[in-house]
Amino acid sequence: MEDIIELATRVGHALKAHGLMLATAESCTGGGVAQAVTEIAGSSEWFERGFVTYSNAAKASMLGVPEDLLNRHGAVSEEVAGAMASGAVAHSRAQVALSTTGIAGPGGAVPGKPVGTVCFGWSMGSRTIVERLVFAGDRHAVREQSVAHALRGLLRFIEAA
Amino acid sequence: MEDIIELATRVGHALKAHGLMLATAESCTGGGVAQAVTEIAGSSEWFERGFVTYSNAAKASMLGVPEDLLNRHGAVSEEVAGAMASGAVAHSRAQVALSTTGIAGPGGAVPGKPVGTVCFGWSMGSRTIVERLVFAGDRHAVREQSVAHALRGLLRFIEAA
Repeated sequence: MEDIIELATRVGHALKAHGLMLATAESCTGGGVAQAVTEIAGSSEWFERGFVTYSNAAKASMLGVPEDLLNRHGAVSEEVAGAMASGAVAHSRAQVALSTTGIAGPGGAVPGKPVGTVCFGWSMGSRTIVERLVFAGDRHAVREQSVAHALRGLLRFIEAA
Repeated sequence: MEDIIELATRVGHALKAHGLMLATAESCTGGGVAQAVTEIAGSSEWFERGFVTYSNAAKASMLGVPEDLLNRHGAVSEEVAGAMASGAVAHSRAQVALSTTGIAGPGGAVPGKPVGTVCFGWSMGSRTIVERLVFAGDRHAVREQSVAHALRGLLRFIEAA
């Protein structure tokens, strides 16, 4: 947890330095990224809003993820992670957004997507990147590692802008 | 934290027993309630979506909180807490919703609203109740107590239905 707060602090500094506001679009982390960044005092200067799109209906209506994409690739896919991140930018006043969608377990595994599979997206302007990882550990561990990875990836994404 | 997970577990049981889906609308807790309930395995059966409406623009556009209400009473008010909770029901597929809006600190205090002031709302159908409390402690403590109180209030609200 200490590590996540340190990461969130660095994210805040980076966003402020670049004059950017952040939005989050979370499925498997369920608000954990938003919770982490808002733990930082003054985060309202650089955090605009968060979408906790737990159901597919929420992914479609809150972020504009095409139903077709959800049906074809499944909610846990790089395609949906990318659409969630770019949708969060489009549906907020933030300039940059991150997304998480995965299988935290213990249930939910499907062929080719074991428990611990998490897809991430980061989006700003016309640039969206995605990543797919498989984390070890129980539900809590998968979610915590996902929050940390989403924040670390955001730092890299902003610095590469 | 253990206490909050126990509360979230009880919330899940209560929602399932009543056949209800939950939505959360959070400002000062920044996703902490959504994070807590989704820590429970199988929570997708009873948690539909979460709104982390950190900015006033997010409260208005995501939840339909009237700008006029925000201007007249301020974002940290029983009026806005109630509108956030009923707005979360209206803007989701959930039947019941809770809201939090407050001043976690260290900054942000205004006359009559010291640091630690948090307003809560719970809404289902035509019934919306609100509450205003002042918690002691630092930012982390205020937020953690707020998450626990929102969940405890939800249990009472569901049982009273």
